[in-house]
Amino acid sequence: MPRFTEFETYDVRFPTSLHLDGSDAMNADPDYSAAYLILRTDAGDGLEGHGFAFTIGRGNDVQTAAIEALRDHVVGLEVESTLADLGGFWKSLVHDSQLRWLGPEKGVIHMAIGAVVNAVWDLAAKRAGVPLWKLLAGLSPEQIVDLVDFRYLTDALTHDEALEILRKAEPGRAEREKQLLDHGYPAYTTTPGWLGYDDAKLVQLCHEAVAEGFGQIKLKVGANLEDDVRRMQLAREAVGPDIRIAIDANQRWDVADAITWIEALTPYDVWWVEEPTSPDDVLGHAAIARAIAPTRVATGEHVQNRVVFKQLLQAGALSFLQIDSARVAGVNENVAILLLAAKFGVPVCPHAGGVGLCELVQHLSMFDLVAVSGSTDQRVIEYVDHLHEHFLDPVVMEAGHYVAPVRPGFSAELAAGTLRDFRYPGGKVWTEFTKEQSK
Amino acid sequence: MPRFTEFETYDVRFPTSLHLDGSDAMNADPDYSAAYLILRTDAGDGLEGHGFAFTIGRGNDVQTAAIEALRDHVVGLEVESTLADLGGFWKSLVHDSQLRWLGPEKGVIHMAIGAVVNAVWDLAAKRAGVPLWKLLAGLSPEQIVDLVDFRYLTDALTHDEALEILRKAEPGRAEREKQLLDHGYPAYTTTPGWLGYDDAKLVQLCHEAVAEGFGQIKLKVGANLEDDVRRMQLAREAVGPDIRIAIDANQRWDVADAITWIEALTPYDVWWVEEPTSPDDVLGHAAIARAIAPTRVATGEHVQNRVVFKQLLQAGALSFLQIDSARVAGVNENVAILLLAAKFGVPVCPHAGGVGLCELVQHLSMFDLVAVSGSTDQRVIEYVDHLHEHFLDPVVMEAGHYVAPVRPGFSAELAAGTLRDFRYPGGKVWTEFTKEQSK
Repeated sequence: MPRFTEFETYDVRFPTSLHLDGSDAMNADPDYSAAYLILRTDAGDGLEGHGFAFTIGRGNDVQTAAIEALRDHVVGLEVESTLADLGGFWKSLVHDSQLRWLGPEKGVIHMAIGAVVNAVWDLAAKRAGVPLWKLLAGLSPEQIVDLVDFRYLTDALTHDEALEILRKAEPGRAEREKQLLDHGYPAYTTTPGWLGYDDAKLVQLCHEAVAEGFGQIKLKVGANLEDDVRRMQLAREAVGPDIRIAIDANQRWDVADAITWIEALTPYDVWWVEEPTSPDDVLGHAAIARAIAPTRVATGEHVQNRVVFKQLLQAGALSFLQIDSARVAGVNENVAILLLAAKFGVPVCPHAGGVGLCELVQHLSMFDLVAVSGSTDQRVIEYVDHLHEHFLDPVVMEAGHYVAPVRPGFSAELAAGTLRDFRYPGGKVWTEFTKEQSK
Repeated sequence: MPRFTEFETYDVRFPTSLHLDGSDAMNADPDYSAAYLILRTDAGDGLEGHGFAFTIGRGNDVQTAAIEALRDHVVGLEVESTLADLGGFWKSLVHDSQLRWLGPEKGVIHMAIGAVVNAVWDLAAKRAGVPLWKLLAGLSPEQIVDLVDFRYLTDALTHDEALEILRKAEPGRAEREKQLLDHGYPAYTTTPGWLGYDDAKLVQLCHEAVAEGFGQIKLKVGANLEDDVRRMQLAREAVGPDIRIAIDANQRWDVADAITWIEALTPYDVWWVEEPTSPDDVLGHAAIARAIAPTRVATGEHVQNRVVFKQLLQAGALSFLQIDSARVAGVNENVAILLLAAKFGVPVCPHAGGVGLCELVQHLSMFDLVAVSGSTDQRVIEYVDHLHEHFLDPVVMEAGHYVAPVRPGFSAELAAGTLRDFRYPGGKVWTEFTKEQSK
């Protein structure tokens, strides 16, 4: 019986702060980073499971240490029985009676569990010889529901309700899979809107986004109101009236500030307002959503777990739910969140960008289309053109759509050269950077 | 100008799981642990700042690594200007633009900030030559408000409202300080109620608690309803009708389960129900609170930050607010939470126990009494008789009350021998334990 034998972690960082890519009102100078994991087995098939947590620089060592803390939960397990009960595996990590004190179910330790769970799913899809989205979308409703831990959810979504949602979507699976393979999944782009870019670059990138076929763009806002009004006006002029413009405040405001600020931007037709305040503030989001209606609220990239998503839905605090592939505890928890969103009829529009978040999250939206919500209506996956070249199976965009990946796995695998050169602090990129700085 | 020069961390663990002390429905086998920090300066006065995060075993290494990640935020800072602006120091840690991705403001990284902030407060109180509670209670309302970050709070508590609360409490400070020094601060004990104890031990410990002068005890519940009913009945018989009995489910239930379970215990007169469900579930707590009224809900030991406390208060989800000295980002954030509780008129009854949580949190309640709420009405600090002997300035109980500490500092300091012998995995206690196990 093959077992998990190796558990290898890497602190990988990209010096993105040098170019102000990824700059917003809250994250001034990110160095996009991955706390990265490779799992190996003695099955003799050469297949590995890759997974990671995404951070923006400092603290990536802590995140890597947290993944290391889960080593004994994985090494030694039988591969086949583990893959046959990934719901049980998830619980064995999340409900560890000592580790849960570090969360529970939030922050560094929860993201570490996400990395491990996702690595195991990567392996599962490779062993099955299919991309992850197809592996998930090929499971029976019963198998999908078994992946989910309903603890703390049953006041909003029960096991039986989830099963009903999945069964209702079952008949159209084949047709929607064909639609997905033929046309891809719609995307929007954040590339034009980073706060660090000047007006000329903003306008140029807006034109490029439209030319590339995107139907939606997003602007970062929240540092200076006057600047935001000017940038919003420029962007609207550049893209015309038919392209959706979302704005993203990255948690910058208190409730009252959010309402005032958003009202100043609504004349330019705001598709959604993202992260207006603290990701922990369900009631704050709900108050903002009520005040700015019909303008709508989106949030989720920093929402720590399914319990907070449940409440955001219960409180009517969001109109677009933004899952992140590497913030919560991996595929299983995102399946729970997709089911919650379906129950409440809220479209899921994932957060992506960073390091490999586009690569991962496309699989979840594609699964959602085929087997859960059954729709792309009002649904788009974020796209940011960063660092894809480091992945073995990078996302492919065509006419503003994600092309469905066909390679087996979760598209999670960084190139060996990247793991070597960008390893922090010893990789070539960082030793040279340090030499340069000390000149 | 003296500066912070040394930042020394320790992974300290106590093998408490051997005796099932601290066992509850969620935490079956805790090894009480501290991720511990000593700060030193070159002031030449020999004074050190001690602080720590509390965990229950596995993962204490990750917690210690997270404290290490803050080293560069402290070492090199000028001592006096740092102590003169501890509100600013707090923000420099919490709003670090890269580290906040690991939370934001939750979990491992937030607890690490708590350890650092508390260590700096320990030093501040030692330099002032007073216990921390007295240092805080001697600040002007303006100085206290400057400690607080009002970001995300202003829809519930503004700077000016906080100032008004503090000014209103100012006239009686001297009188209440005298009351505190004469009579101490009321406590309740959790010692009788751990799930791992048999009925005979429960009854015996209940009798002892009453004999020691406690007016309130607490039972752990949530593993088995039949057992809980029997234990509650035994405890009520043992303590009589006049001693308050609180129950604590340690997050065990979903909303509907909580309501059923609590109703089965109410015939025995339940003073409060603690942590009925996920600490993240504001709306769930509110639903439970409405359903079980007039029985009341208490929560807080796992509440991640002031934003979640704000919502629990806004939603009427709790009747007793349980701060924890080492879960949120230290003294400053707990000052914010005490002010929020005062604004909503909710009594603060701290969580304690573990390693040194009693030692720390007594200072916060005593400050609350003298300078914020101005009352001990319905207020009690948890007391658990664990591991106090390892501290240089352990808590002192008299007739069910915490005696106000008079030694300068935050009572945070572990004995040097403890730091040496319980260090994990190299300390004597652990090397001997490992030898024993491998026999």
